[in-house]
This record gives sequence, structure tokens and C-alpha cells, in this order.
Amino acid sequence: MRTQVGIIGAGPAGLLLSHLLHLRGISSVVLEKRSRAHVERRVRAGVLEQGTVDTLVEAGVGERLLREGLPHHGIELRYAGTSHRIPFEKLVPGRRITVYGQQEVVKDLIAARLAAGGDVRFEVEDVALHDLETDRPCLTFGGARLDCDVIAGCDGFHGVSRPSIPEGVLSVHEREYPFAWLGILARVAPSSEELVYTRSERGFALHSMRTPEISRFYLQVPAGARVEEWPDERIWAELKARLESVPGFTLATGEITEKGVTPMRAFVAEPMQHGRLYLAGDAAHIVPPTGAKGLNLAVADVRVLTDALAAYFEHGSSGPLDGYSRACLRRVWRAQHFSWWMTTLLHTFDDDDAYARRLQLSHLDYVTSSEAAATTLAENYVGMP
Amino acid sequence: MRTQVGIIGAGPAGLLLSHLLHLRGISSVVLEKRSRAHVERRVRAGVLEQGTVDTLVEAGVGERLLREGLPHHGIELRYAGTSHRIPFEKLVPGRRITVYGQQEVVKDLIAARLAAGGDVRFEVEDVALHDLETDRPCLTFGGARLDCDVIAGCDGFHGVSRPSIPEGVLSVHEREYPFAWLGILARVAPSSEELVYTRSERGFALHSMRTPEISRFYLQVPAGARVEEWPDERIWAELKARLESVPGFTLATGEITEKGVTPMRAFVAEPMQHGRLYLAGDAAHIVPPTGAKGLNLAVADVRVLTDALAAYFEHGSSGPLDGYSRACLRRVWRAQHFSWWMTTLLHTFDDDDAYARRLQLSHLDYVTSSEAAATTLAENYVGMP
Repeated sequence: MRTQVGIIGAGPAGLLLSHLLHLRGISSVVLEKRSRAHVERRVRAGVLEQGTVDTLVEAGVGERLLREGLPHHGIELRYAGTSHRIPFEKLVPGRRITVYGQQEVVKDLIAARLAAGGDVRFEVEDVALHDLETDRPCLTFGGARLDCDVIAGCDGFHGVSRPSIPEGVLSVHEREYPFAWLGILARVAPSSEELVYTRSERGFALHSMRTPEISRFYLQVPAGARVEEWPDERIWAELKARLESVPGFTLATGEITEKGVTPMRAFVAEPMQHGRLYLAGDAAHIVPPTGAKGLNLAVADVRVLTDALAAYFEHGSSGPLDGYSRACLRRVWRAQHFSWWMTTLLHTFDDDDAYARRLQLSHLDYVTSSEAAATTLAENYVGMP
Repeated sequence: MRTQVGIIGAGPAGLLLSHLLHLRGISSVVLEKRSRAHVERRVRAGVLEQGTVDTLVEAGVGERLLREGLPHHGIELRYAGTSHRIPFEKLVPGRRITVYGQQEVVKDLIAARLAAGGDVRFEVEDVALHDLETDRPCLTFGGARLDCDVIAGCDGFHGVSRPSIPEGVLSVHEREYPFAWLGILARVAPSSEELVYTRSERGFALHSMRTPEISRFYLQVPAGARVEEWPDERIWAELKARLESVPGFTLATGEITEKGVTPMRAFVAEPMQHGRLYLAGDAAHIVPPTGAKGLNLAVADVRVLTDALAAYFEHGSSGPLDGYSRACLRRVWRAQHFSWWMTTLLHTFDDDDAYARRLQLSHLDYVTSSEAAATTLAENYVGMP
């Protein structure tokens, strides 16, 4: 079996890459370990940058996104008993974010690939990468063999792609945070029209939403916390204690339909390529979720990789492929810094002393009172050009 | 002996307060432990915010400052082999900084006080504060007694004023940095027209100046470093290694006339008042020197205190005096945060891992490429309103 681009992973990165390559007349096969039902139900990020929406719409997979996605023109920062709006329409005119679940993007992309006769294989076992340093790399899986010109590793942080690169090639930079996020979905109309990022003495809380009927919440919890420690009543009590810190705000509660703990980790592997293997999305880098950058970085990687592969297959030009990692990493590190910045701005750290806490409050006062400082938040949040 | 305001310390805070009170018809006596020659020669800060210059000029003590001070409309940030200008004229139109040594401000203020018949006493021994919680506080010194309505503690971090406040009254917030600054003055024309803030793998370096003939330099050195460890040749070699990191820049050297090590410390005591004692400047708060905020904060405190004292003595209104600390602390914490920000942006930390170093470089890339981020630096550097 042969294809031009062998893609490992049917998350948003792998599926979008396959779709964009198809539009450029480049063949690909997507190999996914999990079932279609699993990847379509996997709850992940839900905040799309303007550039991500533009990419999906231009690629013809944005119809439902435009219909059902919730455009947002600002977010709220809540701390010390006050609430402040960061108004995107004023600070970064013409740019916004759209709230639309990552699994909805995945559903739209799978539907588009299948409608176009794309080759997306689910529940594929024992994927292995071979001959990456030759011009005929190949993938083996479940007894089969797929010869490729190029392999794209889009299989996430725990996938097989990155570990297939020989030891000593990659520089790894990482950071573990001493806390995690407990995330829930609840059948209840959002209590706020916009996302509410809250810094409380009890820890960070985020009020988000997925649809006009479904709310999403996150709570800062200690690293290693387990879902079993968080019965529904405890979650609502803690959300109320953190979010109901301003007069007039009451949190509506409802049935919790999904509960999970996300570790807070930062990770970058450099370069994002080796031989004929190119890594995209979480396979190469992880950000803590505070800045809502993970999915958007994956889409940005895929845009760069698609153009580079098109230059290669259409004109035999390998320069853009050679420069792929360099082209991606500036945005990756910008997102790393922004995600670190949002995380430290809004979370409590056990080892913070009184000085550090006052510094954090002064920083929040600054972000909510200086137009320049608010613009740094806004321009990163909607996505740097 | 009686006066309305007993002022401890003839640094810029105490002298400016005495001068401004005199202009409002309020009497004061300044008590200074050191000699006049000592305080006039003590080399300290040298970057004046626009608001500081305005205050001195409006108070009639800005004539020489306007003649000899060097107005600057930008600074340079140097890192990773590149140099970038932060253009104040574009980012914060109409605002600038002025390079003029703190000891020159002190000379001008002493001259003005003495010309007006002001009572400034040098080499005063054994100053002690009494009866702060009554409406007749007093100062004793060298066998004499000075009855006051109010006492202003302007005697710096190591002065007697703050320790005279009973235990348990003040909340103290502090931070020690694991490095210090070695500062020198040299008889050599500056090698750059503007200040050059440099982040090098060898540590931070700052190229500054005092006059067209005298340059000022700072080097990040380990905490506890001693001047004896830094012979002139070693200083110049290290300055060259850190500053000559961009093509075409050559550091001119000259005779070193002054050498000192400044610890890097942050400190805030709250509230900045107790009974009839009001603290101003370093007596209440210390910032690391990276943001050039120490002297400017002292001047801002004195502006607030002068207005509050005038309201008290002219109209018997004690509200502004009661609110003195609260009125000052927002600016103090803004300066604390900015100074921390500039310090962490530009220094190397021994415990920084590869991730932290890349985050720092990404941050520098952002500050030098985003107008919003550059504006946050510029507006803090020239001084928030």
C-alpha cells in the first residue's frame, strides 16, 4: 500500500492535514488507534482563534461551526471581589474567538474526509514508523505496510511518533505545574454570556460554555487529584465559592454529564521534525490549557506543514519542509509564554509568599486598568497573526 | 524646639518634602545622620520619570536639571545577538525620562533649602522617635528635643523610623534576589546615546550614563559579591563580553572612579504610617533597581504627603493624611511588579532550566515585536500617571 503522506492520529491535527492535503491533490492515509466514536466524543478544548476559524471555513469545513459556534468579543477577569471585561472589539478590532468544542471540529472533519472518499482508518493496532531517514519511510500496523513519501506525526503527547525519533536528536523543554484542572460539562445554561476567568484565594476557576444549554467549568485542583474525590455537590460548592465572589452573580447548577482531570504541563520538543517525519500539535508541544492555545497551535502547525508539503509535491522544493520546525516554533514559544503568563496570573501557588500574592494582584490591577496591558492579553488570546 | 513637621533623613525624599512644605508655608526641620559632603556624593539612581522632573521644575529646583539633565526618548534592549529600541516618542507620546544623578538632585535641594533659610542639620546623632500615637510626637537627638505635629520618616531602608513602629503594626512583604548589581562610574563618553539593557547568557548588563563625559555601568554579579573581587580589568572584560554582543558595537573604556555592589531586594511595609509618623521612600519600600523606580517612588510619596499635610495644616482636614498609605501603595505595588518584571526579563537565574530560558527569550521577542507589549514597558518606565 502506498500514499504520499502517512498520517498518524485522527485528532484535529491529523484530520485537518489530511483534508487540506486532499484539497491540494495530495494523497494521505490516516491511522487512528481509537474508534471513531471515541475520538468524536473526546471532550477537549473549545476556544477557537480567529485564524483557526478562518482556516476551517476556507477549507470548506466551517458550515456547522459558523452556524452553531458562539462568537465572543471579550472575556471577563474576576478577582478580589471585582469583575473586569477585556473588550476584544476595542483592543483588537475585527478579531474575536469562537466557542465550539474540539470534538465538533473532529466530527466535521471526519464527515468531510469520508464524504470525499478519504482513507481514515480507526482502531488500527501496533502502528510503527520505519526508515525515517530515507526518502521512502513507511508505516506498519496490524500486519499491513504503508509506504509513504512523508510521515506526519499527529498522534498527541502520548503517541508513537515522537518516541520513534532516535535518542539525542530532540531537545526537550518541559515544566510541570503543581496543580491540575478538574473540568466538567453540565446541562445548564451558562450563568454568564462570556468566559469568566477567576482568580480566587481558593484557586483558579473558569466558567465557560459549549452551547446555550451546556456549560463548561474548570477548577484548579492539586496535582494528582482524582475525579472520585470530587462528587457533584463538592464541585458546585467549590465553583460557587470561587465564582460567586462579586455582588449580583449567581451560578446556575445542573446535571454534570462529564468530569475529568487534566494535568497542567508545558512541553516542547525541538526540532519538530526528523528525516521524513514531521510532528504537529500535541505530538510536539503541550501548553497548560489556561490560554486556550493547544488546538489553535495544532491548526497553525498544520497550515505551515500543508504549504510545505504542497511546495514539495507540486514543485519538488524541499526548502519549506526543511524550515517547517523553525517556522512553527516562534508561534509555539509565543503560546508557551502566553500560557505560562495566564497560568501564573490566575492560579494560586502553594509556595507563594505574601509578596508574590501582592505582586499577582498588582499585575491583575495593571492588566485591567492599562489599555496596553489589556491588549497584550487580548492579542494573544484571539491569536497572534 | 518646635516645628510642624520633623523630617528624618536628608536624602531626596526628606529634602524635597521640606522644600515643598516650605512653599506651602509649613515649617520643618530635617535631621540627617551623615555629613552634607557624604549625602551630596552618594551615588545612587539616575533616571528621572517625567512626573519627577515636573515636580522638581514646578517646585523651582529644576533649573540645573533642565540645563544638565539628558532627556531620553527611548531605551535599547539587547539579547541573543540583536538590539531593539523601545521608542517612547511613538509608544507614549510626549513622555520621556531624564538622566540626572540622584546626588545632583540632592545638591540642588540642599542649596534651595539653605538659600531659603531652611533648617537642615547634618551629622545629627542618636535620633529617636517618641509619642507617635499622641498628637505631640517628638524627636530627640544629640541631647536636644524637637516637638512636632507630625514626623516624616525619610531615612531609608536602614533608618530608625520604621523600626520605631511597634511590632505587629506593619505587614512586611519582601523578596531577596540571588544576585546583586556591581555598579561603576567611568570617565569615558557613553558608547551609546541611550541606555542599553542587555540580557546575556553571562548575566545582565546595563550601559547607562551621567553626563556626556561620564558613563555608568552595571553588571549582574552573584549575591554577596565584593568589590575587591572585581579589579578594573575584570569589569571591562565582563562588560565587553556582555555588551559587545551585536555587530558594530564597541565599548569605550576609561578610568573607573566609583565602584559599588547593590543588593537586589524588594520590600514593602504596610501601612506606610502609624499614628503621627509617615514613612516615605526607601523607609517604606525598596525595589530592585532594574526598573529605575526607587527615587521616582520616593518623589511620588512626597507629593502625596505634601498635599495631605497641607490639607491638615491649612484646613484641619485629616482625611488625606489618614489615606496617605492607601494613596501611595497602588503606585508602589505597580512599581514592585514592573521592577520584578524587568528583573526577571533580563537577568539569568541559576535555577532556570532550559524551558525557563526559552520562555525568557520568547518574552523578549514579544516585547520587541508587539506594540502593546512594548508600550507596557514604555509606560511603566516613563512612569504611570
